[in-house]
Amino acid sequence: MPRSSDNNNEYILGIDGGGSKTRAIIVDANNNIIGTGLSGPANPLHGFEQAINSITESAELAIKDANLSGVNLSDLVAGVGLAGVNLPVLFEKMSNWQHPFGKMFLATDLLIACLGAHDGSDGAVMITGTGSCGFSYVDGHPYTLGGHGFPHGDKGSGAWFGFQAANHVLMSLDGLKEKSVINEKLLALLDVTDSVEVVEMIAGKPAAYYARMANLVFDAAEEGDTVAKAIVAEGAGYISGVARQLATQKPPRISLIGGLTPRLMPWLDEDIKDSLAEPINPPEIGSVLFAQQQLALL
Amino acid sequence: MPRSSDNNNEYILGIDGGGSKTRAIIVDANNNIIGTGLSGPANPLHGFEQAINSITESAELAIKDANLSGVNLSDLVAGVGLAGVNLPVLFEKMSNWQHPFGKMFLATDLLIACLGAHDGSDGAVMITGTGSCGFSYVDGHPYTLGGHGFPHGDKGSGAWFGFQAANHVLMSLDGLKEKSVINEKLLALLDVTDSVEVVEMIAGKPAAYYARMANLVFDAAEEGDTVAKAIVAEGAGYISGVARQLATQKPPRISLIGGLTPRLMPWLDEDIKDSLAEPINPPEIGSVLFAQQQLALL
Repeated sequence: MPRSSDNNNEYILGIDGGGSKTRAIIVDANNNIIGTGLSGPANPLHGFEQAINSITESAELAIKDANLSGVNLSDLVAGVGLAGVNLPVLFEKMSNWQHPFGKMFLATDLLIACLGAHDGSDGAVMITGTGSCGFSYVDGHPYTLGGHGFPHGDKGSGAWFGFQAANHVLMSLDGLKEKSVINEKLLALLDVTDSVEVVEMIAGKPAAYYARMANLVFDAAEEGDTVAKAIVAEGAGYISGVARQLATQKPPRISLIGGLTPRLMPWLDEDIKDSLAEPINPPEIGSVLFAQQQLALL
Repeated sequence: MPRSSDNNNEYILGIDGGGSKTRAIIVDANNNIIGTGLSGPANPLHGFEQAINSITESAELAIKDANLSGVNLSDLVAGVGLAGVNLPVLFEKMSNWQHPFGKMFLATDLLIACLGAHDGSDGAVMITGTGSCGFSYVDGHPYTLGGHGFPHGDKGSGAWFGFQAANHVLMSLDGLKEKSVINEKLLALLDVTDSVEVVEMIAGKPAAYYARMANLVFDAAEEGDTVAKAIVAEGAGYISGVARQLATQKPPRISLIGGLTPRLMPWLDEDIKDSLAEPINPPEIGSVLFAQQQLALL
């Protein structure tokens, strides 16, 4: 039989929902992670129903994983960080969801990533994965930089590096740019041999497809390839510029996070590299911290 | 009552079908244009039914315009130049069309543009409009350069210039690039004031939308704006490179054609500018010339 929600807020649920997957964790009163769950996409921009289904499913999986028999979604306080809810209309729609939790506190994916990286304190993050974005949170003031999307923005992201690579290979196969180690690596990855086939593969593809080609640019750059080094220098230079711009907001700490971090880090400007702080927790912990901060304000 | 097709090939129909419109002309035995017709898109890549409808409709309009009472589509020999039929599968599909003409000869839009520009003789063309492409036809050998599509290719095209402009404005509004005259011109054209609104306008838009922003880049460059001059120099440099590469095929003449020609021409390398020849006829005349050449081979 379901227990009614008490006021102890014994269990906190942290949700990190993005364009490809949703992570859920449950922490106990001592902030120990006692269960995790993984589900599909939860960006309401790409589907509201899918987003709320992924959130609910990942939470149920986390309860099951924690072996919390008799505990229901309605017993949980949920901190929910989502991509897409930076758009006011989607934040409102998601806020109005008749959610199954005891309480729900909603935030952007950027805010929970930032809170996670700095253990709930003020700070800034640069996120470079499929896309790229800068964000700072200082004295309750959120500030977003870049993150305009692909292909028109998101410079220095995985998709951007892959796009530059495809661009170079096409011009190079036309004899209009010098050859590069990128050429053979990209043709091998796509399993094609000429520019007509390259175009057939890449035309109309989303950011995630191009992001698959990012690693080969860094590989080529690390092998000393001139073209690859120029692309990496341009992308990394942009991210260094984002760090400098974020620093004007005076965040106590700045972290670089996201899947491209280990490849990009060595190419940042030296002073930027030295100024970066290790992220302390992942975004789903940021969601828990956000829920706890909001509870404390009640 | 329809006349049966005779062997005099009295009237030749020339069709130039592209992604946005189809032009038809009818010439008499003395190669005088006696009628014209205009219809919708005829790129079979974007719809086979629409393509054949546009071709038929433009031809019927041209017959009507020529006041050829009693003359039917089946009395015409048609030279048909189409975008998209560079892809073998579409060339075959279009060739197998149970067309209404007496005879139909099918060619790519590039070949008829080239034949038109050089009055049926060997030569090369660079086409810069919404997209960009280089093409030469020498001793029966067609050679295509670039034209890989937007946004991954088509450098130096209207869409490419617009894309660079939008890209710069977004980074500039973030404080990550210098301001440019492009900023105010682009915001005014889109009737927006900040980067969120710019992204809302441009996200997911096709090449033709970006091409609308090309003129403002050239305007800004002509006003001496440093950023615009750099973008124009890069795009024009690419087109100059295409001309050099085409020259290796030894075409007797090279022409620059397409909607962006008057804006781009002044920025090409001096030696390239000096080497370019005026196009003699438009592509639909190229279609007529193609049909006449094919008839002569029968």
